[in-house]
Amino acid sequence: MNNEVKIPIEVSARHVHLTQDHVDILFGEGYQLVNKRELSVKGFFVAEERVEVVGKKASASFGILTPLRSATQVEMAITDAIKLGIDVCVRMSGDLVNSAACTLKGPKGEVTLDEGVIIAARHIHMNDRLAKELGIKDHDEVSVKVSGDRGVVFDHVAVRCDPAFDLTMHIDTDEGNAINVNNKNITYGVLF
Amino acid sequence: MNNEVKIPIEVSARHVHLTQDHVDILFGEGYQLVNKRELSVKGFFVAEERVEVVGKKASASFGILTPLRSATQVEMAITDAIKLGIDVCVRMSGDLVNSAACTLKGPKGEVTLDEGVIIAARHIHMNDRLAKELGIKDHDEVSVKVSGDRGVVFDHVAVRCDPAFDLTMHIDTDEGNAINVNNKNITYGVLF
Repeated sequence: MNNEVKIPIEVSARHVHLTQDHVDILFGEGYQLVNKRELSVKGFFVAEERVEVVGKKASASFGILTPLRSATQVEMAITDAIKLGIDVCVRMSGDLVNSAACTLKGPKGEVTLDEGVIIAARHIHMNDRLAKELGIKDHDEVSVKVSGDRGVVFDHVAVRCDPAFDLTMHIDTDEGNAINVNNKNITYGVLF
Repeated sequence: MNNEVKIPIEVSARHVHLTQDHVDILFGEGYQLVNKRELSVKGFFVAEERVEVVGKKASASFGILTPLRSATQVEMAITDAIKLGIDVCVRMSGDLVNSAACTLKGPKGEVTLDEGVIIAARHIHMNDRLAKELGIKDHDEVSVKVSGDRGVVFDHVAVRCDPAFDLTMHIDTDEGNAINVNNKNITYGVLF
């Protein structure tokens, strides 16, 4: 495989995606979340507001990403899951059937989720043109090598293709800390 | 390289190694730590006692390993270092010159370490006979593949050889969580 493709790596901190129904309960009927900062994925924002995620052992404050979604989804690292007491599994974003439960607390109310909590599987955002050049299809898995004193090859990295995607690999905070990579400096992986 | 060698992987939680001088200050003159449980590495124990490690932002309770050493060493994951506010680097055990500072608090006193805090570099314990069979020398680096939904190849894994060592790979809690491995079930890596 072409190993000259350098993929910028971004670490995704724990966060929540909400439905409007859940925003209504957590923040009040018809409440509009305020965008604070645009993410590297264009058109996606982190909101000013935060929400408390409650597990069996503890709770923690999570950022909220917008735009709103058709299903509420909570993404955390295994370190968070252990601390909060949530028995959570690794899933692709959106694959929520039989995923873990938790309670969300906002200033105006609480939502109990029977499912929706996941460890987000690491993945690459790639535009269709590059994917085609590399012979990669949406949902294919690739391996990505990251150099450094904690260098690894990540296997089973799913590729998500979309004409609008800028090339980026998303890993969670455990994966970032395991390879000593954070968002302060740009680190690249290469297809392996 | 022979990929049939299965290496049991163990996750090392944050811990401290102490000198007798520091035990005297933290727990009282001539205090003897009490062994609670033997580790997988024979002759090494976790003590009943614990010590508080204080950084610039927070503090946390750490286990103490015995036997005592000639230099006090604090080992933590990057997740711990971020939380505590300690600017720490990845080192092999014992390589403490210009490593990070912290304060230790015990029931009887405090010790300020100018250096001694490290992120322990992942490593393999291997007996000399197997190392010789595989053509590996003490301090050589190898790569180790771990399968699973978060499968990786760890590069730059140092091998430590000793006639008494049972074959084991030690990783820290960030590395364990990144690959969804803990000490509840035995996971194996293979030389890659």
